[in-house]
Amino acid sequence: MKILKIEKITNEKWLNLYAATYEHNGKTGRWVYASRRDTCEPGAKCDAVIIVPVLHEEGKPPRLVMIREFRVPVGGYDYGFPAGLLEPGEGVEETVRREIIEETGMEVIRFRRISPPVFSSAGLTDESAALAFVDVRATPEMRQKLEGTEEIDVVLLDYEQVCKLCDNPDLPLDAKAWSTLYMYQRLGKLD
Amino acid sequence: MKILKIEKITNEKWLNLYAATYEHNGKTGRWVYASRRDTCEPGAKCDAVIIVPVLHEEGKPPRLVMIREFRVPVGGYDYGFPAGLLEPGEGVEETVRREIIEETGMEVIRFRRISPPVFSSAGLTDESAALAFVDVRATPEMRQKLEGTEEIDVVLLDYEQVCKLCDNPDLPLDAKAWSTLYMYQRLGKLD
Repeated sequence: MKILKIEKITNEKWLNLYAATYEHNGKTGRWVYASRRDTCEPGAKCDAVIIVPVLHEEGKPPRLVMIREFRVPVGGYDYGFPAGLLEPGEGVEETVRREIIEETGMEVIRFRRISPPVFSSAGLTDESAALAFVDVRATPEMRQKLEGTEEIDVVLLDYEQVCKLCDNPDLPLDAKAWSTLYMYQRLGKLD
Repeated sequence: MKILKIEKITNEKWLNLYAATYEHNGKTGRWVYASRRDTCEPGAKCDAVIIVPVLHEEGKPPRLVMIREFRVPVGGYDYGFPAGLLEPGEGVEETVRREIIEETGMEVIRFRRISPPVFSSAGLTDESAALAFVDVRATPEMRQKLEGTEEIDVVLLDYEQVCKLCDNPDLPLDAKAWSTLYMYQRLGKLD
């Protein structure tokens, strides 16, 4: 399969549709996908980070830090992880440190694992993000700095609550969030 | 936050952009998102299934079944799981049984876990899918039935290969796929 050309078919500020013409077994086809990028080069550039933070506090069990946020496409509140787009010239670790403070008021004390850029839905969009598993601590202020258009609630979950959220069929969850909850449930602990 | 109205702003066959007008703290804003749906009702309908199949064969270690597939938005081959859209009136388990045969020639012998519909990227699209963890067996024919416009390769991975793929920074991977590989790596086995 080969991509012959890519055309931008909308002119929105944050998200656009692109139409790719491809060749496959001598036939040509058209594939429409969504992108946040300005150029029409598909591929594995890292657009964003998704942070899986575990809060460690003395005398308390480790707790997973999640975000309850209003999401327009979902039509309501969604549970997910702190996340954000890389700014020009910014590296993944830098973005993680910035976003976790901005969204939760917490600080990274240890990077445990960073995934390569992975695709959110490879047939629908070129959006890719690195997943960063980090240990965090609360800063003295621990204040949420809310961004203008977002309503964000920070939620702290111990192991039992992680399992409960994973097993709840009625709460809207992000796919990466559910997969991570399920991982901890299978592991039998939050560490 | 409240959604005041939603307008379809493109007229494509498979994927469209919608613009939602929302109200937040007395101000209104506009949020553009991508959707495969025909209606403009956001929410947690289940669009698709993503299948995490483990193949069990006598005298062999269990192996994870993945798909290597050309993905236009990615601009190349991507590793992910067998997946597919629900047909009208079809339930999640039915879709899983149909898609796994169509894409890999294998049969479900046990459903281990089905997630609620989870969102691929809740800020960008209303796309949601149920993740189904299943045990599978190979049918005598074990032939791939390739769909018209897709190039699909079935890949079987034992535990060591799962870890290797999880640790490879250069292979394009779907987010749900990487999260699952990481879960098995952390569990220390494929079961």
